[in-house]
Amino acid sequence: MNTESAEKARIWSAVARRVAGRSLEGPFYTDRDFFDLDIAAVFARQWIFVAVEAELPEPGDYATVEVGPYSVIVLRDDEEELRAFHNVCRHRGARILEAGNGSVGNLVCGYHKWTYGTDGALRHAPSQPPGFDRGCFGLKAVHVRSVGGLVFVCLAEEPPADFAEVAARVEPYLLPHQLRRAKVAARTDLVEDGNWKLVMENNRECYHCDGHPELLRSFFPTYGYTEENLPARLRPAHERYLRADAELRETYERLGLPYALIEELDGRTTGFRIQRDALDLAGESFTPDSTAACRRLLGDLPTPRLGHLALHLQPNSWFHVLGDHAITFSVLPLAPDRTLLRTTWLVHPEAEEGVDYDLDTLLKVWTATNEQDARLVARAQQGVCSPAYEPGPYAETEYQVEAFCAWYIDRLREELQR
Amino acid sequence: MNTESAEKARIWSAVARRVAGRSLEGPFYTDRDFFDLDIAAVFARQWIFVAVEAELPEPGDYATVEVGPYSVIVLRDDEEELRAFHNVCRHRGARILEAGNGSVGNLVCGYHKWTYGTDGALRHAPSQPPGFDRGCFGLKAVHVRSVGGLVFVCLAEEPPADFAEVAARVEPYLLPHQLRRAKVAARTDLVEDGNWKLVMENNRECYHCDGHPELLRSFFPTYGYTEENLPARLRPAHERYLRADAELRETYERLGLPYALIEELDGRTTGFRIQRDALDLAGESFTPDSTAACRRLLGDLPTPRLGHLALHLQPNSWFHVLGDHAITFSVLPLAPDRTLLRTTWLVHPEAEEGVDYDLDTLLKVWTATNEQDARLVARAQQGVCSPAYEPGPYAETEYQVEAFCAWYIDRLREELQR
Amino acid sequence: MNTESAEKARIWSAVARRVAGRSLEGPFYTDRDFFDLDIAAVFARQWIFVAVEAELPEPGDYATVEVGPYSVIVLRDDEEELRAFHNVCRHRGARILEAGNGSVGNLVCGYHKWTYGTDGALRHAPSQPPGFDRGCFGLKAVHVRSVGGLVFVCLAEEPPADFAEVAARVEPYLLPHQLRRAKVAARTDLVEDGNWKLVMENNRECYHCDGHPELLRSFFPTYGYTEENLPARLRPAHERYLRADAELRETYERLGLPYALIEELDGRTTGFRIQRDALDLAGESFTPDSTAACRRLLGDLPTPRLGHLALHLQPNSWFHVLGDHAITFSVLPLAPDRTLLRTTWLVHPEAEEGVDYDLDTLLKVWTATNEQDARLVARAQQGVCSPAYEPGPYAETEYQVEAFCAWYIDRLREELQR
Repeated sequence: MNTESAEKARIWSAVARRVAGRSLEGPFYTDRDFFDLDIAAVFARQWIFVAVEAELPEPGDYATVEVGPYSVIVLRDDEEELRAFHNVCRHRGARILEAGNGSVGNLVCGYHKWTYGTDGALRHAPSQPPGFDRGCFGLKAVHVRSVGGLVFVCLAEEPPADFAEVAARVEPYLLPHQLRRAKVAARTDLVEDGNWKLVMENNRECYHCDGHPELLRSFFPTYGYTEENLPARLRPAHERYLRADAELRETYERLGLPYALIEELDGRTTGFRIQRDALDLAGESFTPDSTAACRRLLGDLPTPRLGHLALHLQPNSWFHVLGDHAITFSVLPLAPDRTLLRTTWLVHPEAEEGVDYDLDTLLKVWTATNEQDARLVARAQQGVCSPAYEPGPYAETEYQVEAFCAWYIDRLREELQR
Repeated sequence: MNTESAEKARIWSAVARRVAGRSLEGPFYTDRDFFDLDIAAVFARQWIFVAVEAELPEPGDYATVEVGPYSVIVLRDDEEELRAFHNVCRHRGARILEAGNGSVGNLVCGYHKWTYGTDGALRHAPSQPPGFDRGCFGLKAVHVRSVGGLVFVCLAEEPPADFAEVAARVEPYLLPHQLRRAKVAARTDLVEDGNWKLVMENNRECYHCDGHPELLRSFFPTYGYTEENLPARLRPAHERYLRADAELRETYERLGLPYALIEELDGRTTGFRIQRDALDLAGESFTPDSTAACRRLLGDLPTPRLGHLALHLQPNSWFHVLGDHAITFSVLPLAPDRTLLRTTWLVHPEAEEGVDYDLDTLLKVWTATNEQDARLVARAQQGVCSPAYEPGPYAETEYQVEAFCAWYIDRLREELQR
Repeated sequence: MNTESAEKARIWSAVARRVAGRSLEGPFYTDRDFFDLDIAAVFARQWIFVAVEAELPEPGDYATVEVGPYSVIVLRDDEEELRAFHNVCRHRGARILEAGNGSVGNLVCGYHKWTYGTDGALRHAPSQPPGFDRGCFGLKAVHVRSVGGLVFVCLAEEPPADFAEVAARVEPYLLPHQLRRAKVAARTDLVEDGNWKLVMENNRECYHCDGHPELLRSFFPTYGYTEENLPARLRPAHERYLRADAELRETYERLGLPYALIEELDGRTTGFRIQRDALDLAGESFTPDSTAACRRLLGDLPTPRLGHLALHLQPNSWFHVLGDHAITFSVLPLAPDRTLLRTTWLVHPEAEEGVDYDLDTLLKVWTATNEQDARLVARAQQGVCSPAYEPGPYAETEYQVEAFCAWYIDRLREELQR
């Protein structure tokens, strides 16, 4: 049995030991071999959320993003179409564009000036002999597509077949908010000291939401309870919720906004969940008093009181779309114990900072929430490093974490069977 | 042959090649596989010195300590008994208490508020269904015991059988100094850039003591010589030593302090050595002039002139108990080439800083000595990384280093044969 | 199949896949196993350029250098001969001399004072029993030799047989410049974020020289072109070059300076290339206007207008010798993705800083060039980390890079067949 097989056997047996309803064993979060498998089985297979179209309004605008060991350029080409390429020169492999966003006419490698068009074609390679065939050395393309202004790439040759259907079901929820022509008000990068799955799992439950005082102001205190287990003291809050919910449904119907909950987190390749839900107090936005943070509304909808549209797309993203702004979250693995969380705030394209919105107010709740989550994720990572850690039971309110893990384990099985 | 077996074979052959009287081969100090084996064979098997009872005087007082990849809570419970637990929540594995010392009523995981009593029992787990059996999810216990106020934990299910006997032989030496009710005057953490065995080996010989000018002031210059090889120029010092020694024995007899040398560093699971010995000059303490650093004496003994009680306990500790204070040393491996040395100074419980002792004076000698040792250990670590390094011969005066290595190799053999 | 064999098979297949005329696959630059093999196959086999004799003018002068995991002392002994030793004490392996240059009477290990002569013999080991044989514990010698003042070490027991011949062919070019009795004007260490081969490859072509505006001032703009592919706009420059070249040949003949190009970069164990070539403008030196940076000339030659003598020696060095100064470059691998470039500037032994040369002017061009190269190497390293990278085609002007890679692959084949 060779090295690779020994590693594979070790991983297989961990996959086989997985008990439904319990957290994953430690090595899934800490071990380099499992991390490498996650890249191969998940990040190099699935559609990965990496950017928003609003970052790339004009031809030549680009964003680079690191997906595990891959560096990818997302670009609007000269025909105004989205393109994505591996950020690797076809000559000797140098990285072409540095990390970040910018705008270019052509893509010029800084090493020996090999020059590619925005369509990826090699336009010029200095000092090549006459027989040199430029057609063989265009940039390697990466699949890219937008879903209502959210940009996804897929590194696999054959992207998952079911994504088109998911996009078709999700897009009607997103389109009225016109994210594609929104403006990026802010983007933050936070490196969390934990495995990417801990970042995702943490987002999939509000069992820990006591730790989020700012966020909780917008959430009803009944969040996570069902009619059956609702404590008596929360009865008045629940009735407030029911009233807000009824009012919202009426608004959604009137404005033609789809709002049915769809929850297909596992059992399919592209697990997802979408829902519109009421917010407490003013019910408008994630701000200290739940009123809108931006006076111009997304999509020019007639009211800020729309609750929030929550979208979760496996493997690496979640989104909140509100009447006045939207927030996107992209989770990108850096190492077994380090993960980048990229958060982007979108507002109406003509909203002016200082006039229509105050940037601090806009960013306040989720900046605080992200930092609180990062501390929790770091403690979870520290804990699962101990050989004494063993998987524990999820509470009912953590059912989406269980769904995420089940979905993830299916991805590993698929990869190991290839 | 699978990966694990190939590694094991490599380690076995290094163990088999070990030559008595010579230092260990390089990989024992530099290789990650050997380091992992050290954790399994030594730190997860043996009783490890981690704290002093004086840190935990009251119910709820705790100290956390990292033993390799394990995080352990040492705690005084509501019944005033010592307890130790894995610092890992039974829910999703989050670390419960952060590094350091403190005091708690219950142990509450900061992630989802699972709450454990000081006995480790799970008292409360929010939002669990009716059938949830809290009894299955208490904190995992770790063996813990005090020897005369020195706190040891053992991560193994079955701790070494001979520790009770060692404790029974050592405790009479310690008890008169009443360390259990002492006060922690100071604690320092020093990260040394070397393998934990180099830290231990360095402590097991005074062949390098030229590098410790402060410490040497309290030691007789004859240290390390025998009657046979004593240079003529040291004859007067030797006679001074003999007088001090005779005087001390009389004191020990009078005060009922055991003082016989016991040296069983190898050939048994819990290797140890204990000895009382004279100090030069005033003969009282580790200070620049060898006079007591603290006016209140430990255990209220009637004289500061007691020389030092030196205790060495394998695998990871040594201790100096003087008339006026005691110093404990805990060696904790962080990586193949990084080791934590935790040093704690203890004084009489009612000794007042600035009145009975000056903190700088108290800490001066061993702070300097630790830093000097750290530099030597770093140079040893650098050197053994070279493929050109080969084990060299120990001098006679390094016989305790040899004993440590022989004991260590026995531990590896035991582990590899399990 | 055991671990080692599985690794070996993986490397073998990468070696077998190598396509001439194309860059190497990613793992050659990024993988720890390949790095370890490079140390074994190249740095522990070949003659490695590590220092200049000018650093060690007097008996007892030494320089330490790290060659991969090895630490080596290069020393002028009491007989004024060059010596090299492993920087590892024969007692317990401690590093004897710290990194850097200095001067010693004996080599004394700072740990236990084992004391070695400048011939490496163990002179004194304290506290050893009468039977101890010092003769068995001298410092381990490393092969060392000077080629015209350039110091090479070889860690292998049997150094490559062809180095003597290479030295004999190269030395006549070097000797007239009297580097052996030169003075070190400056030495810089630059850590580049790339594999050592990327550093070497980068130096073996001027296809990227657009990125070196300072250096290009001294180079003819026709550099890299042949008569056949010379653009019309460069015709005047080419004629300027031909005039300079003709004038230089006359000077070389008159002064008896060998100047024939020798190019044997692959097909032999010690690949090398040597050439004298004209410089543009004043034609004297690497300075902004190409005039000499130092008024005293090396070897007291009668004119500064000598163009440059360029020597390239595989695996790890290149040299520029000018009329007024010389620059040496030593490439030392630190990690798969980190490499030390040590650059040394040599001037006439009696040249006085501030009088005969201005240090900033002397260092300016190559300091800038090194930093520019380091940025290019870092981008190349980043790029080849992507799994999407595949080897691309070298341009004709990169033929020396191809020669380097072919030579390197031969070294791996040799090592794998041992």
